[in-house]
Amino acid sequence: MGVKEFLRMSNGERDTSYAQNSFNRSVISTAKPILEKAIEDLVNEGLPSNVLTIADLGCAFGPNTFTVITTIKRKVEKMCNELGVKQPELQVFLNDLPGNDFNSTFKFFFKNYQQLEGERIGEDGKKCFIAGAPGSFYERLFPLNSLHLVHSCYSAHWLSRVPPGLTSEVGIPINRGKIYISNTSPSPVSKAYLEQFQEDFTSFIKLRSKELILNARMGLIEEEKLDSFNVPYYTASCEEIQEVIDKEGSFDTKQLVTFALDIGDKEETNMQVKGGKVAKNIRSVSEPLISHHFGHEIIEPLYEKFTRLVIDHMVKKLPIELVSIAITLQRKGWK
Amino acid sequence: MGVKEFLRMSNGERDTSYAQNSFNRSVISTAKPILEKAIEDLVNEGLPSNVLTIADLGCAFGPNTFTVITTIKRKVEKMCNELGVKQPELQVFLNDLPGNDFNSTFKFFFKNYQQLEGERIGEDGKKCFIAGAPGSFYERLFPLNSLHLVHSCYSAHWLSRVPPGLTSEVGIPINRGKIYISNTSPSPVSKAYLEQFQEDFTSFIKLRSKELILNARMGLIEEEKLDSFNVPYYTASCEEIQEVIDKEGSFDTKQLVTFALDIGDKEETNMQVKGGKVAKNIRSVSEPLISHHFGHEIIEPLYEKFTRLVIDHMVKKLPIELVSIAITLQRKGWK
Repeated sequence: MGVKEFLRMSNGERDTSYAQNSFNRSVISTAKPILEKAIEDLVNEGLPSNVLTIADLGCAFGPNTFTVITTIKRKVEKMCNELGVKQPELQVFLNDLPGNDFNSTFKFFFKNYQQLEGERIGEDGKKCFIAGAPGSFYERLFPLNSLHLVHSCYSAHWLSRVPPGLTSEVGIPINRGKIYISNTSPSPVSKAYLEQFQEDFTSFIKLRSKELILNARMGLIEEEKLDSFNVPYYTASCEEIQEVIDKEGSFDTKQLVTFALDIGDKEETNMQVKGGKVAKNIRSVSEPLISHHFGHEIIEPLYEKFTRLVIDHMVKKLPIELVSIAITLQRKGWK
Repeated sequence: MGVKEFLRMSNGERDTSYAQNSFNRSVISTAKPILEKAIEDLVNEGLPSNVLTIADLGCAFGPNTFTVITTIKRKVEKMCNELGVKQPELQVFLNDLPGNDFNSTFKFFFKNYQQLEGERIGEDGKKCFIAGAPGSFYERLFPLNSLHLVHSCYSAHWLSRVPPGLTSEVGIPINRGKIYISNTSPSPVSKAYLEQFQEDFTSFIKLRSKELILNARMGLIEEEKLDSFNVPYYTASCEEIQEVIDKEGSFDTKQLVTFALDIGDKEETNMQVKGGKVAKNIRSVSEPLISHHFGHEIIEPLYEKFTRLVIDHMVKKLPIELVSIAITLQRKGWK
């Protein structure tokens, strides 16, 4: 079974929702210079006169995708002013699975439209047009040759399905008692996950190469290792990612950067509170999946236990680090 | 105060929701030949080779907008087959106010994607890409020169605001006891509504003329008269509509058709049931507005009373007719 029917971030505005938690925020701010560099190169190579089409794949909802779009808009404005060229209008597609909470995302954008547009709104009207594009990025999402810039943060490690090959020939689970690769998993488990990642990521970049115009840019930020639980999820290494890109052949790698972030709140000194925040972050991403698989009734006791484990970990002053990879790819074409 | 903050159809799947009721269904099927003729002319004049961009303005949610998009897709396919030309991919924007239930709309489309795509899906993949474009159609929604076809059914009679001038100089409401133009309303009331319609509809077509490419088509279906209640709403006559179009000057009128529909369920002989259905239809469109203005507590008693009035009306065998106008406009340009 594919995951597109039930995979989504926790909806709405609850205390444990994705919009209220998600450490993507700090990742996005760390990766900002990489995204800005990609835009700089894109603008320097010549802009379309009419409209610049942008997609944020796996946007989820809430402020993160808004921050990304604002960063892109500001940088395009700044570059156009510097170069003295006319600023194109922006058509922005926010993509996620059809079960994503697009209603909240749209409301958030409209509440903050003035901030996105800057002073320009009201003067010569809107310059940035937002649309939601529901669908799996393991299928085509946009017409051929229609996108100039693709951004995706912490999305392409979500696999299209739980890898096959996790049960023996007689149907016994080979990774018993675990829901992801762990230190004691037998080797076919990591092989199955890696193969699924290779298949999925190849199809991800092949599909995007059809949708992107020549020379367009794609900015991917991937999560390398957060050794918690997970199911249809694979945190590939730089080498594993680069291998897929090279084999597929449509893109040149322009930037590849890794960075580590401590996901604990630095200002917070109370370990109980600090651990609680980290646990809530992870809950906001994992709850819909866990609850779909194991049932809603396990959720509260599970996350209570998980929170205690995180707090124990933090009290011992062990770091909770998130290692990320940011990559900018250029659709091969004219130089 | 504008209406874009609270105007929307009743959400979700409830018995009184828009998706479950709405007589737009029969209007859409009656207006189908007019839409098909507009597409025929558009295709005959030459298609873009890559992508045909379509917008459904005021899409609400549920099956109506799906039916419209399916009609467009089938007609484009049929025309391309007949003419032996390559079928372009379709980029479809579903527009409504940001408070619309886009989540339900997206889920509906994905549940029925196979039906929309026909046999083509899986063979050479998707041909029709759906996106939600939230915003008021009294503001710009899309980049300059980016649309080939605009469809809008029962939307542009919703005004951008309750007309000013409905209170006297000393602040006394001049249309006391009513919430729309009625037989006993003083004449400044209809004047105020007409002027607001002229202002709004002029801005509607002016904005669309910027977004449409030359020669593109716009298919509008308007509600002429349904003498119930209403607030930021004006059901213009053919002449009033044509006058605005001529004055604004960007479009040629290609088709203008009026038709009347009995909105009672013809199969239903039990007048209680028949009247109840009509009342629910009207509730699905009006409830959010009434409830925003008068408070949620009046809703149940109000619609109970309204249902009894509708049933009385039907028992007397009086028709409940909806008069509609369908117009196809062509963006002026090369002939």
